[in-house]
This record gives sequence, structure tokens and C-alpha cells, in this order.
Amino acid sequence: MKNVEHYKKGYFMPPVVDMSWAQKEYPDKAPIWCSVDLRDGNQALIIPMSLEEKIEFYKVLVAMGFKEIEVGFPAASETEFEFLRYLVDHDMIPDDVTVQVLTQAREHIIRKTFDALKGVKNAIVHVYNSTSFAQRQQVFRKSKEEIKQIAVDGAKLLQRLTDEAGANFRFEYSPESFTGTEPEYALEVCNAVLDVWKPTADRKAIINLPSTVQMSMPHVFASQIAYMSQNLKYRDNVILSVHPHNDRGTGVADAEMAMLAGADRVEGTLFGNGERTGNADIVTIGMNMYALGVDPGLDFSNMPKLVETYERVTHMHVHPRQPYAGQLVFAAFSGSHQDAIAKGMHFRKENNEQYWTCPYLYIDPHDVGRTYDADVIRINSQSGKGGVGFVMEQNYGIDMPKKMREDFSYFVKEVSDHKHQELKPAEIYDAFQKNYLNADTPLKVEDFSLKKKGDKWVGKVLVRANDEEVVLEGAGNGQLNAVSNAVCKAYGIEFSNLVYSEHDLDRDSDSRGIAYFGLTDKEGHTTWGAGVDTDTITASIFAFMTAINRMDGMAQRVKFRALKSTPDTITAFKATSGQH
Amino acid sequence: MKNVEHYKKGYFMPPVVDMSWAQKEYPDKAPIWCSVDLRDGNQALIIPMSLEEKIEFYKVLVAMGFKEIEVGFPAASETEFEFLRYLVDHDMIPDDVTVQVLTQAREHIIRKTFDALKGVKNAIVHVYNSTSFAQRQQVFRKSKEEIKQIAVDGAKLLQRLTDEAGANFRFEYSPESFTGTEPEYALEVCNAVLDVWKPTADRKAIINLPSTVQMSMPHVFASQIAYMSQNLKYRDNVILSVHPHNDRGTGVADAEMAMLAGADRVEGTLFGNGERTGNADIVTIGMNMYALGVDPGLDFSNMPKLVETYERVTHMHVHPRQPYAGQLVFAAFSGSHQDAIAKGMHFRKENNEQYWTCPYLYIDPHDVGRTYDADVIRINSQSGKGGVGFVMEQNYGIDMPKKMREDFSYFVKEVSDHKHQELKPAEIYDAFQKNYLNADTPLKVEDFSLKKKGDKWVGKVLVRANDEEVVLEGAGNGQLNAVSNAVCKAYGIEFSNLVYSEHDLDRDSDSRGIAYFGLTDKEGHTTWGAGVDTDTITASIFAFMTAINRMDGMAQRVKFRALKSTPDTITAFKATSGQH
Repeated sequence: MKNVEHYKKGYFMPPVVDMSWAQKEYPDKAPIWCSVDLRDGNQALIIPMSLEEKIEFYKVLVAMGFKEIEVGFPAASETEFEFLRYLVDHDMIPDDVTVQVLTQAREHIIRKTFDALKGVKNAIVHVYNSTSFAQRQQVFRKSKEEIKQIAVDGAKLLQRLTDEAGANFRFEYSPESFTGTEPEYALEVCNAVLDVWKPTADRKAIINLPSTVQMSMPHVFASQIAYMSQNLKYRDNVILSVHPHNDRGTGVADAEMAMLAGADRVEGTLFGNGERTGNADIVTIGMNMYALGVDPGLDFSNMPKLVETYERVTHMHVHPRQPYAGQLVFAAFSGSHQDAIAKGMHFRKENNEQYWTCPYLYIDPHDVGRTYDADVIRINSQSGKGGVGFVMEQNYGIDMPKKMREDFSYFVKEVSDHKHQELKPAEIYDAFQKNYLNADTPLKVEDFSLKKKGDKWVGKVLVRANDEEVVLEGAGNGQLNAVSNAVCKAYGIEFSNLVYSEHDLDRDSDSRGIAYFGLTDKEGHTTWGAGVDTDTITASIFAFMTAINRMDGMAQRVKFRALKSTPDTITAFKATSGQH
Repeated sequence: MKNVEHYKKGYFMPPVVDMSWAQKEYPDKAPIWCSVDLRDGNQALIIPMSLEEKIEFYKVLVAMGFKEIEVGFPAASETEFEFLRYLVDHDMIPDDVTVQVLTQAREHIIRKTFDALKGVKNAIVHVYNSTSFAQRQQVFRKSKEEIKQIAVDGAKLLQRLTDEAGANFRFEYSPESFTGTEPEYALEVCNAVLDVWKPTADRKAIINLPSTVQMSMPHVFASQIAYMSQNLKYRDNVILSVHPHNDRGTGVADAEMAMLAGADRVEGTLFGNGERTGNADIVTIGMNMYALGVDPGLDFSNMPKLVETYERVTHMHVHPRQPYAGQLVFAAFSGSHQDAIAKGMHFRKENNEQYWTCPYLYIDPHDVGRTYDADVIRINSQSGKGGVGFVMEQNYGIDMPKKMREDFSYFVKEVSDHKHQELKPAEIYDAFQKNYLNADTPLKVEDFSLKKKGDKWVGKVLVRANDEEVVLEGAGNGQLNAVSNAVCKAYGIEFSNLVYSEHDLDRDSDSRGIAYFGLTDKEGHTTWGAGVDTDTITASIFAFMTAINRMDGMAQRVKFRALKSTPDTITAFKATSGQH
């Protein structure tokens, strides 16, 4: 690509590069979470949230379990100022929740921020100034010493105004654009701020390291965090926080590796809203912990509701492939995936497995309020027998024999390919019904009778064929055998193999059963049929007859034989039927 | 969260954990890219692509510079089979492009795949079987030996059919679900496959390690890749490939760290389309290299066109925060960001900087076909003087004095807050015009004249005030000074400070100029006005008068004084005017 010579790395390696954090596999406990949805998220919206929208979002955050919530930049606009006042005036800050406010390290802004904080019990005052090489050079045109002094002056003013207010606010300092700052210099500034605040075990200070613009790979960021963690003064009394953005698409990895490297706290947003490419997505980071058996301390169990609220108040949307939350993240359209998932689900049930290990599904969709029916196995022209079988079983309790499933899946694939769309369960059932249950030509069963004679059964079937009624009669060792013989003899049908199965349709309260027949002709071609009835034998006869009807050449065969019974035979049959 | 006890790690650490790759900061050359958009991407769509859509997408991939393109799973469906045949029959595979086809390690599927390959010059036949613990246990119910044998048999059949066809196809093997497979076992299977193929320097084999489901943090994945890279047989003749998915939101980091750990090749898709949460996004991985000065060897320079085509043929969309490509990824709404960007842009221009270092913009939006005007500085109620000033300058060549910009930004913020929407440049210009250029009450300038008398200037201004015409007259050292004195004397106006500037409106071909006046009254309150004319003095007088009109209490003042000139005075003025 042209202009590649205009780029070089914009970050700085720490003087000591320590990658020993990489020996840990994943964070083994939840960090302190701080939601910046109402500040960083809000300021990146085309239409910032209204007061009402912010209130609704805030309530959701509290309900999820966030204990630290950045509620805005009160000095920046009337709306943000009013929002904080609303929370205070309506007593909406629970005792265990701390609201956080952002302010630049500038006197009039800090003073206005403290005005907004009047009456707040637990607050974090978050002061920042930009320390990066580029901002010092291009925006502030100030020396390192001058930039550090801005931070120190801001820190002092926070302390003084808090003392004056007799408040017990906690403090947070961010060297903004940390990722573009020389680590030694960022450390120098942070330590100077800490020297003002002198944090104690009772009143820890937060040092927050933002990747305002993500500039490096995540392990490089982690090495910067490790350096800071190992060299900050008052470290035991400092809560080390990170605030990753997502310019390189690795915000989640930044947050997770930073935790391994020493970070105690993560600032981020739901679904990664925030400036430009967004902030680190707390939903993904939290669910990543959950999926490894670590409780994130936040409640994501009703993800669809969370998505709905988020989309409504921010006017953003959650992408269909957004981890854990998107519409398609549990969807399997492809045959082999569907087959493996169906088998995995069965295995899980059979073995009463403790751990979730189902192929192709990283977590159990139920755990985030999603359903197997609607979200997992979805049917289009890429789908196979496993998926189609799963949908029929899940939705309609229809558990076809394996080979019948394959037969049906080709039919479904064709319908979907032809329609050029995904098929809903009802459409698939419809195809099943048309194809297997309702195949009533050329032989439409009108009635049948079965009688035991000695050790044999005699079966009679009244069918309509070529618009004529005909009674077919045969004998056999069993009831189905008798019917089968009647039909086969009459039309000269032979088959080399026969598959039969039946089961209750357990979703129906009137306990109907379903029977399946697979008939293989002399050429080795198998056709399938199904029948449903409260009586098993009736269901089986229907299944047999639909399979017969679907055999190759049956229409010609029936036409050619042109069987018809005399009126007397039919009358005699009708007089004795209904006794089976 | 409930059910957290149902989870534990599903991956396996390699017997030797080597993190030495972490000493490298980023990949210093592009990998071999393989697009799987037409296969993995396609099979994850609600509506798979039609033949026409696949052809269009394929052409885009070739034009971008992909040399390896997985075109489908020809044995899986008629559409996929036909698509490959279409490419062959229409001679659409350039000599330097290799098409790749996927097949399960099953005989009839492999044979059908080879049918589809007839007449293809350069192809990679990609065979896979699933090797994970969970799939062995739940799906295949086979031993490790049996599963390895499937791979070996598949490898042998590929070799045999290729020999029979007299073709020169290359081979790829994937132990599918690699991330859920014990690394030692994955290695054993891959080495058994390599023992069949015996790759040479002339005909290298590809071993592809898919994170079919992403199960670990990226550095763990990289340690698995390092182990494979260090222990694969025929390593010099093996191209080690990765195929990351994105279940944990870290597909990009997986690919990048795998490259550091030994991967030579990356399979992925544009914008991360693919099963469930998608594949690793090649756009992001490639642009991440670009942003560090490494040429990715793929062309992303017309990103808007790429997005448009992608969205049309896949019916998916690119999220507004998608790195490098989303609608909002260069947008700055917040005042402080806008200010820094505007300063950074100026600095860049002034200093003719080689390297892109502008704050808050990771790359130059121009490099991916985006514009500064429409994409970067966007104005809503969060915006400040920097952004508003930037928009006025970029779009209309209006470069207000710094303090006037601040004055105007409060006004713009109010408009946006009130309208509850983003403001387009035209709306902002409209506000500027209404506010500063057209402020013609209480004093509407109808005409003026300026005459030199000795070393003084005499200025006369005909204004309409209170529906009466009045000629104001004054003298001064300069022309503006004379007009100013005329107006101030007449209405008793005093000011403590005055700011004046003017410049060409360089975007206009008739070279009009614009002048700005800032007048500070005795109370220290400053009001601003602007004027536009082809004549500088005229523009300045208009600017002065709009500033006067906007001063506090002017309406009352003009009403109270109720000045009016006699008809004779007015007639006399009109007779001599037009001479300035």
C-alpha cells in the first residue's frame, strides 16, 4: 500500500521489558470494573443520550453489579452537570456504588466539577492531562516539566477542594494518551501526583493508564503496564487501572493481558461503545472470565434485554457477530457443525455432564438468556441432516431414523436453495408434512380392518386409486405384515429392506404417536413415509402407505393395474370395518 | 453469575511453554494471506451468496492482491461445485492466484472434490478432520488412533488422486478444533500426515491450525503455535498456517501473536465474517501492519468501496466502530479531541512532517479513502471550539479568531443540544451566517462614505434605525476608526478592547474577503461580528456593525436615542455616497 513509509511505531518500550506475566494463562479473579458508558461511550455517540436515556442506562449498570460508574464530565455541558445532580437529588446512588466524574487538570473545570459533586457521599474525582509526545509537541507545545506541573497542580487542587468540602472523595489520575507517552515519563508524572495525594491503605488512589489510541500489540501494552505496576510509588495503596481503546481491534486482549501484568481495575463499556473504534468491551472481558470458570461479578444472564436497552438508549446496535451477545454468535447453519452440536447436546443429556463441552458452542446459550430453538441450529441451503433433525426434534418432537433425516435434509436444502432464504422451523415442518405425512396419491387409504384368524392376521385396506375404490386383502404373521402383504400383492411391489420405528409425540397432550417406514426397492433405492395417530397401528399403516406412495413408478403401476372392487365387496368391507 | 461452576478451560497447554516470541514487538513482514470469505464466511450467512455474488466477491479479492483464495467446499453443494467450475470455464483464475478447496477426510467427498478441480492449474486441496477431545468423545466416538487414521487415509487419497490426475496440486491439512486438541496429539496427527506427503522445498505442504472455537487468551494460543512450529517434521518445507475465530473477541490478537510465534500464513476474512463470532479480520490485521510501517501486500486504499461491495454481496454490515473501516472510527465529537486533531493537522502542515503522528487518529483517514471533511470532525452537543473552527475552516475557509471560535462553539452546542442531533457543516455555516454576518438590527447599514481630509478620515454611515434613516458621522486616523467613531459617538458606546482580523475567503473564485471584529465593553463582555465583501474595508465595516448590533443593550440604546436625520441631510449623503 502506498504511503506505508509515513508510518512507524508511535509507542515507546519500557526500559525493562518483563514478559513474565505471560506464564499466567488467564485472570483468576475479576478486576474492579468501572463503566465509562455514560462518559466515554456517550461522548462518542452521534446523538448523545438525553437525561432520561442516561438515567435508564445508569439503572441498568447498577442492576448488573457495577460498583464504580463514571457518570460524566460535569463541567463540559449542562446535560452532564444536571445528570449528576439528578442522581443526587433523587437519591439514586446506592451506598455501595461510587460515582466517578472526569475533569481536565484545569482550575475552572475542577471547580465546576466540585460544584456538581455537592452532597455526593462516595465519589471518585478523575483528573487527567495528556502526557504523550505528540500532544506535548503539537497541542500544548510545552516541556515535560510543564506538563508534569499541570498534573501536580490538578492533584493539589483536588486535594484542597476535597478538604474544603469536608468530603471523603477518592482520586484517580490518568496520564491521557499513555500509549504515546514514554513509560519512564508517565511513571515520573504518576509518581509526582501520588506524592501529592500520599495514598494510604484506607484511601487508595487510582492510577489509570489509558490506551487513548491503541498503538501496539497487546503484549507490548502489557509490558508497559508491568513496568508501571512494578515501579509506581505507594504501590500497595495504588489501584492500577487500565482503559483500553480498540483502534487495532485488540481492546479485549489489552485489558486481559494488563490484568495478568498487574492491573487491578478495568475501565470499559458495554459492547465496546466509545470514541472511534470504541472502548474495551466489558461484556466480552467478563464473559471470557465466566467461560473459564471465573465469576466476573457482573450479571450478563439476560443478554437479550441488555442488548435491547443498550440499542434503544444509545441508538447504536450490537453487531450480529459481537461475542456472547450478537444475533448470530450461537448460530450454526452448516451441516457438519449442526451434526456435531446435536450430538454434543445428546451426549451432555445422556451423561449428565457437569462441564459445558459442546462442540462449536463456546458457552451454553441458556446462560446468557438465549434459546437452543431459535438461536443455535438454523436452516438454510448449507445445512445438513444433523441440523434439520435437531430442529424437528427440538420443535416438534419428531425424531426420524438417521437415514430418513438425510433424505429429508436433501429436500430441505433444495427448498432453501430455491427460495434463497433461511427456513424457519414451521416451514421445515410444513415440508415434512407435505412430503411424508400427506403423500396420499396414488393410493389414498380410506379405511382398513385387521382380524386374527388362527395364528395369522388378515388385513383389508380400502383405498381410493384412479378414482375407484378397491379393497386390498392379505395375510401375515403380524398386523402390519398383513397390510403390507395386501398392498404388495395387489400391485406387485417387492422390497429388499424395510426400516420401521415409532415413538410418542411427547409434546402433544393427547399422546399421539408417530411411525416411520423406510422401504428399499430391488434397485436399492429407499423411500420414506411417516404417519401420526393416537393408535400406533393406525400411525404405522399410514406411514407404510405414504412410503409406498412415494416409491418410484407407483403412479404408473397403480394406473396400469387399474384395480377396482365390486360394489358388493366394498359394501361388505364397510359393514365390517371399524373393528380393528 | 449462576452456572459458573459449569465451566473450566477446554484447551490444553503444550508440554513446553515457550513465550520467547513475546520479545518481538510486531510482525515485520506480511504473512501469506488466504481469504476464506467464500467458504467460511459464506457458510455463516443467513442467506449464502448466490453464484453472481460469489463471482463479484472473488473479483474483489483478486483485485486486492490475495494470492490464495478458498473458493468453497465443492462437494457440499451444487452451488459451490458450480462456482468453481464457473471460475475454470471462464478462465478467471490468474496464473499467480491459487484457488483452495475444502474437503472432509472422507473418500466420497474427496473424490467429488477432485471432480470439481478438473482443469484447474494451481489449487490447494485442503483436507481436515476434527481432532479435539470433545469431538472424539461426543461426535465420532473414536480413539486417538482411529482419528489419526482418518487423517492419514485422507492424506493418502489426496496424493493418489493428484497423481492420477497428473496434477500439481498443493496440499493443506487442518486438525480441526485444534484449540480443543491436546497439542502433543495434534502434532502426532500432523506429523503422520506430513509423513504421507513428504513435502519438499519445491512442493511445500500447509499445516493449518484452526482455533475453530477460540478457547484461550492469545498468548496461550501463541504458545501452542510455537510448540507446533518447533516440533513439526519437515518444518522447512511446511507452511505453518493459522485460522483464528473470534469467540473471545481476540481473533486479531491470535493471528498476530501466532505470526510472532512461527506462523507463516493467515486464513481469515474481510471484516471478520465467518461462523458465529466470525473469523480473524484480515482488514484489521493488514492495516495493523500498515500502521506500523509494514506493507501488508493487500490493497485497502478504497475502504468505502470495499465496505459497500461487502455489505451488498453478503447482506452483512460493517459495524460503525469496526477498526479502519467503520463509519465512526475517525469521528471526533468531543471538544478536546477536535481541538487536538485540528492542532495536529496544522502542525503536520506547517512542519511538513514525514510521519503520521496526529493525536486521536491512529492513521491518516486519506490512506483508506476517507475524507477529513465528512469523517473526522463531527459536531454535536459534545463538541467544542476546536471542532467547530475546524469545520468552518475546512468547509468554508472561515478562520475565525480563537476567542470568536469559542463564542461560536457555545452557540453551536446550544443548537445541537436543542435539536438533539448532529449538525452538518451547512447547518453550522447557517448558524454562523445568522449570528454574525446577518446581525442587522437595530442598525441596518444602508450605505457609507469615507473621505480623506488632511491627515484625518471622515466617515459617514447611513443606517436604518427604528424605521428611520440616519446619517452618522465621525472622524479618525483611519477609515475604520472614522466609522467606529461615528457610530460610538452617536449612541454613546465605549469599549475597552477591540480585536480585528481579516483574510481572503480562498475557496471563492471572486476573491471575497472576510473580516472579524470582537468588541469588549466596559464590563469586559466581548461580542463578535463578521462581514464579507470583495472590498476589505466594506467587509470590515459590516463586521464592525454586526458586532455593534450584537452588543448588550443596543436595541434599547438605539430606541432611547431615537436618532433621525433630516431629509436634506439624507439627500445630501446619497448624492455624494458611492465614492468610498
